[in-house]
Amino acid sequence: MMTLLLAAAVQAAAPPAKPTTPSEVVAAAPASAWRAIPADDLLVVELKNGGRVVIQLAPAFAPVHVANIQALARGGWWDGAAVYRVQDNYVAQWGNNESERPLPQGVIAKPPAEYTRRLRGLGVRPLGHADPYAPGAGYALGWPIAYSSKANWANLAHCYGSVGVGRGLSPDTGTGGELYAAIGHGPRHLDRNIAVVGRVIEGIDRLSSLPRGTGDLGFYKERSQDVPIATARLASQMPAGDRPSFQYMDSGSASFSEYLRLRANRKDAFYERPAGGVDLCNAPVPVRRTP
Amino acid sequence: MMTLLLAAAVQAAAPPAKPTTPSEVVAAAPASAWRAIPADDLLVVELKNGGRVVIQLAPAFAPVHVANIQALARGGWWDGAAVYRVQDNYVAQWGNNESERPLPQGVIAKPPAEYTRRLRGLGVRPLGHADPYAPGAGYALGWPIAYSSKANWANLAHCYGSVGVGRGLSPDTGTGGELYAAIGHGPRHLDRNIAVVGRVIEGIDRLSSLPRGTGDLGFYKERSQDVPIATARLASQMPAGDRPSFQYMDSGSASFSEYLRLRANRKDAFYERPAGGVDLCNAPVPVRRTP
Repeated sequence: MMTLLLAAAVQAAAPPAKPTTPSEVVAAAPASAWRAIPADDLLVVELKNGGRVVIQLAPAFAPVHVANIQALARGGWWDGAAVYRVQDNYVAQWGNNESERPLPQGVIAKPPAEYTRRLRGLGVRPLGHADPYAPGAGYALGWPIAYSSKANWANLAHCYGSVGVGRGLSPDTGTGGELYAAIGHGPRHLDRNIAVVGRVIEGIDRLSSLPRGTGDLGFYKERSQDVPIATARLASQMPAGDRPSFQYMDSGSASFSEYLRLRANRKDAFYERPAGGVDLCNAPVPVRRTP
Repeated sequence: MMTLLLAAAVQAAAPPAKPTTPSEVVAAAPASAWRAIPADDLLVVELKNGGRVVIQLAPAFAPVHVANIQALARGGWWDGAAVYRVQDNYVAQWGNNESERPLPQGVIAKPPAEYTRRLRGLGVRPLGHADPYAPGAGYALGWPIAYSSKANWANLAHCYGSVGVGRGLSPDTGTGGELYAAIGHGPRHLDRNIAVVGRVIEGIDRLSSLPRGTGDLGFYKERSQDVPIATARLASQMPAGDRPSFQYMDSGSASFSEYLRLRANRKDAFYERPAGGVDLCNAPVPVRRTP
């Protein structure tokens, strides 16, 4: 019996002259459509079970929190830490929860609320479709954003794989020592209520496939259930030959425009009826290993 | 260190006079706001590893496919079947893929495309916020739907936990023998291209936490990786004392309206800035075990 969504595999056998699917557009994008991610903006989390999770940080959106995370990585904050919360259709969260571990040097204990930044100065590629969470939605610097042109703010949107800073009740903003990744439907209601600092660009499945916690809010009830982290360091701390290296698609490029158009208008051997629209989190910015 | 989203737990200690969070509204909803789910509309999938997944079927939206699924369950189609595909941020899929097993009696081999139904006749509770995938979005009969008033169609929306019918290339529609559940950001681009037949109402974590397949499209490469299914039967086939029993919130009730309002306007000890909007898949219809 044939199975769901074989279309991509079938078409891969005979690439068409003009790309007709989003993944074909990505595969055909010229080198000029890609931007390198600096090694200081890559946080590499090594789980003790052998899994690796790579996070791209977003200093343009949450500079103080990202500087904190870089200082935390350099200070070895997550060495021996753990994933201690996995809530289905919501988040996986890690750090040194409930520990009295002192913050490494250079970490700001009470960062400002970097939930939004100024819109002006960002070159925005509008999504072109309605967004229920903000007056505008689109992309800037390779990130999905929501924004208000009138009020001049923009925020990183909470999509699948987005990484944010765990915090307590307002007005606490969290240091960046406790981080979470979204592992379900994009929790956009958290937008502008939490500092988003990046996104998982490799290994999200290592978090999304973890057993769900059975305590309140998905916390693991027993410390023996925690998923231990061996180390978390910046790519820039690693020996040059060992560093992972990634690129993201320039959200201002012609390739991205075409990718976005096709995400909103699927029509091929599998799709009969294109939607004519797409939501921000269903058109993630393509990221790849540097070829 | 305090952690993300303790608000709910904190507030649970002292319930306020008027509910201020969506979950408080659900907890306070009167019996009249709930509707029983018929035992024929509950498909109970027992994994061999001990996990149970309960699916609510939607005969009002895909009657031929749902009748097929009921006949497949009665004919033991999934006894000894397996989950053979888990694609991250997309779907977990199960059935008898690639087997030549004959279809049980009463199963229609080539069902019509039940991707939409007529809108007229459905009492719709509009979402009240923009939807990028259709002219309208809202709820009917306790289900999330997208619709066009002008063209008189409605479809069940693909949200987290939605269950659809695996199929090959168009115009194949699938029998219902191969099913998938959405385990990531709601894949709304599948709307109106596939028959949605229900939703997982208990045990979605048993599917969402499975190891991701490393083959194309998340298929497990080796049959030894398959996750075996012991049985799948309707609650109506089970001895009365063993049947699980569930209720869904009436999407036309005052409780649901208030729930929806608060999902779009979070403001409490944790949330500072309400969005003023919500997307269809972020306001799932509440379902509970019959008290």
